[in-house]
Amino acid sequence: MFIKELTTEECFEVLTAKRIGRLACTRENQPYIVPFHFVVDGGKCFYAFSMLGKKIEWMRANPLVCVEVDEIKNQFEWTSLVVFGRYQELTDASEFETERNRAYELLSSHALWWQPAYVTGAHLPPATDDKPIYFRIFIDKITGRCAFSD
Amino acid sequence: MFIKELTTEECFEVLTAKRIGRLACTRENQPYIVPFHFVVDGGKCFYAFSMLGKKIEWMRANPLVCVEVDEIKNQFEWTSLVVFGRYQELTDASEFETERNRAYELLSSHALWWQPAYVTGAHLPPATDDKPIYFRIFIDKITGRCAFSD
Repeated sequence: MFIKELTTEECFEVLTAKRIGRLACTRENQPYIVPFHFVVDGGKCFYAFSMLGKKIEWMRANPLVCVEVDEIKNQFEWTSLVVFGRYQELTDASEFETERNRAYELLSSHALWWQPAYVTGAHLPPATDDKPIYFRIFIDKITGRCAFSD
Repeated sequence: MFIKELTTEECFEVLTAKRIGRLACTRENQPYIVPFHFVVDGGKCFYAFSMLGKKIEWMRANPLVCVEVDEIKNQFEWTSLVVFGRYQELTDASEFETERNRAYELLSSHALWWQPAYVTGAHLPPATDDKPIYFRIFIDKITGRCAFSD
């Protein structure tokens, strides 16, 4: 088995084909990871949405985040990407209208793999705010590795 | 589809059956996620090992970490667990001998899914220290959710 570093271009090829990753945010030096559904727009950012909850509250307080995306076929063939980025909420303000529409357009064009509870009629306590929050993660740095057989 | 919170006992049943998760650590409010191979010992801690690198350096400086483990069969059937925990390195000091042996015993009894580069003869720059570092993550809090069909 060999392991190689991916080029930035190769990293974006993988990201563009994926819809599920793990997102980490931090409060008072305590990290927190959740799976999240996303669409990547060019080489610039992730678009995603979520109901109000811990991850949104933490990212509002500290916009520095990390996204990890992987594809594991078996122990000798896998790819893993790590992105350092910054959270920006696409609020109802007019300045975000274009971006919010872009997020909605891209996200709604794909099956929503990781549906939030409000879509599903889940048996969980109701959210304090039942409106989805759209956001983007600016991609500051991306690195990736892949393992492959001889 | 329904979503339910898992009990602590159910969370540990899932963890015990898994070997791969994602580990997040934090430096100066910047989170960082990597996939990691682990074995859970009872309801107490994860055991794992790694070569010296960014995640070990960051966890040495700030032991607060988060582990996420999931199992996604399809969009209507998935389980996701989140653990808040603390890193402790099992150094060569005699006080850690018992724990280090326990970690080695448990980890070596399972196939190493996510093999570190030093095992594989990877084509990467050599590590500054080629000795694996054993560590454990104390489990402070664990929560989980699962989605299932009607």
